[in-house]
Amino acid sequence: MNIGVIGMGAVGMLVAHQLESNGHHVTCYVRREEQLKQLKQSGISLVDGQTVYPEVLYTKQINTHELLVVCTKQTQLDPVLQLIDTNAHLHGSILFLQNGMGHIQKLEKLKHNSIYVGVCEHGVNKTTDYQIKLNGLGQIKVTGLNSCASDSLYNQVSASKFPITVHEHLIKVLNEKLVVNSVINPLTGLYEIRNGEVLKYSSIEQLAKQLTREASESLQLEVEKMWELVRNICNKTSENKSSMLIDLENGRETEIDYMNGYLADRYQSVPTHLLMTQLIKAKEEVKGVKKWT
Amino acid sequence: MNIGVIGMGAVGMLVAHQLESNGHHVTCYVRREEQLKQLKQSGISLVDGQTVYPEVLYTKQINTHELLVVCTKQTQLDPVLQLIDTNAHLHGSILFLQNGMGHIQKLEKLKHNSIYVGVCEHGVNKTTDYQIKLNGLGQIKVTGLNSCASDSLYNQVSASKFPITVHEHLIKVLNEKLVVNSVINPLTGLYEIRNGEVLKYSSIEQLAKQLTREASESLQLEVEKMWELVRNICNKTSENKSSMLIDLENGRETEIDYMNGYLADRYQSVPTHLLMTQLIKAKEEVKGVKKWT
Repeated sequence: MNIGVIGMGAVGMLVAHQLESNGHHVTCYVRREEQLKQLKQSGISLVDGQTVYPEVLYTKQINTHELLVVCTKQTQLDPVLQLIDTNAHLHGSILFLQNGMGHIQKLEKLKHNSIYVGVCEHGVNKTTDYQIKLNGLGQIKVTGLNSCASDSLYNQVSASKFPITVHEHLIKVLNEKLVVNSVINPLTGLYEIRNGEVLKYSSIEQLAKQLTREASESLQLEVEKMWELVRNICNKTSENKSSMLIDLENGRETEIDYMNGYLADRYQSVPTHLLMTQLIKAKEEVKGVKKWT
Repeated sequence: MNIGVIGMGAVGMLVAHQLESNGHHVTCYVRREEQLKQLKQSGISLVDGQTVYPEVLYTKQINTHELLVVCTKQTQLDPVLQLIDTNAHLHGSILFLQNGMGHIQKLEKLKHNSIYVGVCEHGVNKTTDYQIKLNGLGQIKVTGLNSCASDSLYNQVSASKFPITVHEHLIKVLNEKLVVNSVINPLTGLYEIRNGEVLKYSSIEQLAKQLTREASESLQLEVEKMWELVRNICNKTSENKSSMLIDLENGRETEIDYMNGYLADRYQSVPTHLLMTQLIKAKEEVKGVKKWT
């Protein structure tokens, strides 16, 4: 199948690598000249795995594909949405794989008639601009946002080692992931600690519980079940750095507005999430983060 | 006059140095053996100033003095209060110079009948265990906590370069200092920045405003006037590290419980102070702070 992947972060590279090595024709879209050169020269390699050589283009010259997977961060999604909106020739399906929430309202405004959103549950790290490391296999869960959505497409791209499954009630999964992200990300970012350390320090664990409770109650999820999920993910990824910590370390804008900021915007009873949003924005400023505009 | 000074931090050393060089007989009380040795050997010296050689003793063997000045941190005040309470032979006046609040209720329980509290407005840093640096001259403002308090004592110890003045309405001054401390200390501690940087980053300035507003409204102080005071002190001490930042850098317990924690304990409408208390305690844990018990 002819597939385009926009955004060559860890998730984008994983998606492109898996689809290319499963026989699809993949085009990777990037924004930075440096990464364009490196991917053209070195392909995408997997630590302890094979290297694949998909086509690489700049994001601005987007082509027609049967499936387009958008893997950019929330903070870089707006220019991509604009590109999609102004390209009348795009007729394939579009799948959005972003952390957090807030983008779904934006996607509902797209004129395109085959939009999917999904969560990527693989544990994957970017080691260089052209290499990724797979820490744990998961799956990609997908749901259709408008009536024309169908499963048959995803049956074609799904592979045993890289399952893509369609779920009718994915919004609950997205909300659960939102809770987990809005607990682990800001605490690990603020204190510059790894995921497992959230449970190591009793005072940070207490803050994590407080964030879990506020978010779960607002999203009508079971607090105890969600706290169990947060704990599990901290334990399973204990040595990992969260995406927010990595963003802060690299002086990049974080996705705080789509996690804690999204909750604070929509719900009244999340005071800790509201303050966490302010605290991470202050941390961005101290770290000299330049914002994408 | 025969004066004892308990606690040889920056303020204690300054008080001992100034009183000794103004002709009083000063005894310095310390807890650590290392500092005892160093002060006995080297005296107390002022950067660009003279060195004085007061008597130095362990805190546990407290003598009788006409005036006893207690300069320990809030976190180390309890054993000193116990010592005072169990020493029936102490008949002089006792002056407490601590940051924050919370200790005043404790002092009111002392059987001693000549208790004063004060604020030290000198800018002073400890450079070594026996040397201090005076960054800005201020004064020490004092008020009596019980009926037997009188000004005559402080007229005797006050000197032109080291004024000690008695104020009837000092509680307002203490509250104002509490607001300033509970804004500047946790923000500089959390982000590891100097005082001036609180105003440099707009998102941190916004948090500072929020903390100022909550604290001022609870303590019935004018918000605008207090914000002006906070700004002035950030500007005047822009290159300084706050006591909380210094404590965290040295792995020492902070005075958060007597600043933001005190406000959070007493007032309902200070949610940002409550969370700041939790955040600084978490920072203490991450920094491996050992608590004094």
